[in-house]
Amino acid sequence: MTTHACDTLRCMTNPEVHAAVNALADAAATAQSDLAHTTGETRNDLLEALADALDAQADHIAEANAADMAQARADGMDEGKLDRLYFGAKRVRQSAQGVRHVATLPDPLGEIVRGSTLPNGLRLQQIRVPIGVIGMIYEARPNVTVDVASLCLKSGNAAILRGGHAAERTNAATLEVIRGTLAEHGLDPALVASVDAYGRDGATAMMQARGHIDVLVPRGGAGLIQSVVRNSTVPVIETGAGNVHIYIDRSGDPEKAIPILLNAKTQRVGVCNAAEKLLVHRDVAEGFLPVAAQALANAHVAIRADETAYRIIGQSHILDLDLAHADEQDWDTEYLALKIGIKVVDSLDEAIAHINAHSTGHTESIIAEDYSAVETFTQRIDSAVVMVNASTRFTDGGVFGFGAELGISTQKMHARGPMGLREMTTTKWIGYGTGQVRA
Amino acid sequence: MTTHACDTLRCMTNPEVHAAVNALADAAATAQSDLAHTTGETRNDLLEALADALDAQADHIAEANAADMAQARADGMDEGKLDRLYFGAKRVRQSAQGVRHVATLPDPLGEIVRGSTLPNGLRLQQIRVPIGVIGMIYEARPNVTVDVASLCLKSGNAAILRGGHAAERTNAATLEVIRGTLAEHGLDPALVASVDAYGRDGATAMMQARGHIDVLVPRGGAGLIQSVVRNSTVPVIETGAGNVHIYIDRSGDPEKAIPILLNAKTQRVGVCNAAEKLLVHRDVAEGFLPVAAQALANAHVAIRADETAYRIIGQSHILDLDLAHADEQDWDTEYLALKIGIKVVDSLDEAIAHINAHSTGHTESIIAEDYSAVETFTQRIDSAVVMVNASTRFTDGGVFGFGAELGISTQKMHARGPMGLREMTTTKWIGYGTGQVRA
Repeated sequence: MTTHACDTLRCMTNPEVHAAVNALADAAATAQSDLAHTTGETRNDLLEALADALDAQADHIAEANAADMAQARADGMDEGKLDRLYFGAKRVRQSAQGVRHVATLPDPLGEIVRGSTLPNGLRLQQIRVPIGVIGMIYEARPNVTVDVASLCLKSGNAAILRGGHAAERTNAATLEVIRGTLAEHGLDPALVASVDAYGRDGATAMMQARGHIDVLVPRGGAGLIQSVVRNSTVPVIETGAGNVHIYIDRSGDPEKAIPILLNAKTQRVGVCNAAEKLLVHRDVAEGFLPVAAQALANAHVAIRADETAYRIIGQSHILDLDLAHADEQDWDTEYLALKIGIKVVDSLDEAIAHINAHSTGHTESIIAEDYSAVETFTQRIDSAVVMVNASTRFTDGGVFGFGAELGISTQKMHARGPMGLREMTTTKWIGYGTGQVRA
Repeated sequence: MTTHACDTLRCMTNPEVHAAVNALADAAATAQSDLAHTTGETRNDLLEALADALDAQADHIAEANAADMAQARADGMDEGKLDRLYFGAKRVRQSAQGVRHVATLPDPLGEIVRGSTLPNGLRLQQIRVPIGVIGMIYEARPNVTVDVASLCLKSGNAAILRGGHAAERTNAATLEVIRGTLAEHGLDPALVASVDAYGRDGATAMMQARGHIDVLVPRGGAGLIQSVVRNSTVPVIETGAGNVHIYIDRSGDPEKAIPILLNAKTQRVGVCNAAEKLLVHRDVAEGFLPVAAQALANAHVAIRADETAYRIIGQSHILDLDLAHADEQDWDTEYLALKIGIKVVDSLDEAIAHINAHSTGHTESIIAEDYSAVETFTQRIDSAVVMVNASTRFTDGGVFGFGAELGISTQKMHARGPMGLREMTTTKWIGYGTGQVRA
């Protein structure tokens, strides 16, 4: 066995920061055990008050955000990121509306999931309870601070937050409002805490706070998520990465296929449920691809095509076409841009095998009228969500009726697909007896 | 930030073993995608055939086990471990009966967990599917090989196994029977594979096979489990450790308390749901402890007592008493022996705080007749299972009606408490549309 130098974050440590972050998490846990036993009514009142406080302090938060924005501009942040960082008074008030909406959602706690009475009379029930302390590591998007805090409080959980460096002033101002509201409601402000004061070390310490933080949810780009997944000893829920496929079966209806393809690729670019790849059955490629390519070109979508697709599209005299050869890397890349990879497959089986080999397991869609093709695709595709004759853009907690979402899980453990309030809970068994012992 | 030398297994690597183990897992995954789509009937037939094959090959497996036993005896293995290693023909046939029982259990796959039709007509359903490739790292107990293989096959999963070194011959012979049965049923023997050939490196490689193995379940002593939890990049389900408490409330009925205490402590020693600690409310300590101590002494249970309990028990003229002072370490120790820690508490709140601080989160029981004490205890205790006036020994997949169990999860993610077939599954969303796009 060879032993090589360790290059993971797990091997780095700053004992003072670890101790401080663990202490924050432990204080959060103590506060959480009180929150967990408040009524749903109390938690809803808390959220209403938080929304009011955010409205009242919108200008103050916006002021902090203006300083973050100025700094980010000076540092040369690109427009897309600047837009996500922006948290002016109007956006703060929109966030407050979001908090009010969370307050209206059904309480996930206390549901009796299942139960039975054993032959000896012991009455068993499995009841839904909060997870405990949820850690969130995310990029410079201040609205996430409000979203996560409101979802955690609604579901009886505490939150330990590490937001992106560029949003630190905004997040600090927002946190002040959240913690003030908690205190006014007789709850411990320790329920929602930030490790931003410790910079990157704070995030590292969160990843190693096993036994202090119950679950860590990274939200952001693939790099951030993979870093957390690789370096965390705390259980992680992997979210977000979406190398999303649409497969046009030989039985697919082009009248459905083209609108779905355009919607999935272009309705919103840069989101995890946007389509990134198009697979087309060989039998319909000659007819379908020229129409699809023209529609994509009209929408300014660049095409990276395999050999066959390149040939078919290339000879189709399409206007304003940005066409290039795909390389092997394309099949594994989430573009998050006006770009799509196109491949012609010989069969349904080849499509399924390609998707299961290259997908991130987020969402895939089949366009087909053939019953057996639909059955095979929905059964064989190993992703969180499989759509049939529908846009991949529907994979969303709001659309699914969860009211709000913490993220979209692409792993199989605990939660898969959009994570709403229910996915922020665990269960506990209670056995009500009258003196039973085991024989 | 200080960077210190890394001392975790994660930093050690043997590239050939990693590649080999990843290849085993990938072959298992390919085979699993076929198994996942067999009918429940097919999987039950497979298990019946496996049971028959184990019966037929019982002497052959027992022979391999005799060699393991001889080696273990020569290596000085203690009697308890030798008993767990023993897999004579009769025990093999008992295991075969266990496999037949698993075949009779309801199929966990295909359940429609929930669903709805969106306002746009998209029909959403969440369906129960296998997790994929389950890795199991366990100690030298050959019956676990049969248990895990049968539970995995029943639930449509593949299994990658690392059994204890001392059982390698037995496990190899057992695996031969399992893989032979798979082949005879037209299934890929790769579905159940062992990394035993790679020794400890095999286990290390399993822990780092993220993306190849979907979940890792360690089963065995606390040392084994903690090593896997700390070193695995694959999601882990933590099982088994049980620092289990019984709390006698001031309202507790001694007629219930004594039999439950004795049952929980002595009905089977060395199991994770056996009681390890007794907390007694101060108001009833003088009356209860002498009776309890005499009952424990009669059952040869040694007592480690806090100051107050020591004084009360010490002056009670109990026969055959093994009484000593508890130290701080006792409160965190799972004895797995005829030994119990006893502490007198001033209040229900102190009992709850002590348990939440020192428990491993497995099972606790309250003995009480007071309604509010029961409500407070069951709500505030943060463990997988909370019993009321019942023995802690009931925490068991078989008892709970799951038919069989993979282990008892003491973590909050994915599964909590006894893990049956349902806990070996995940879900997938399928959206059936007719051309819907997102507005």
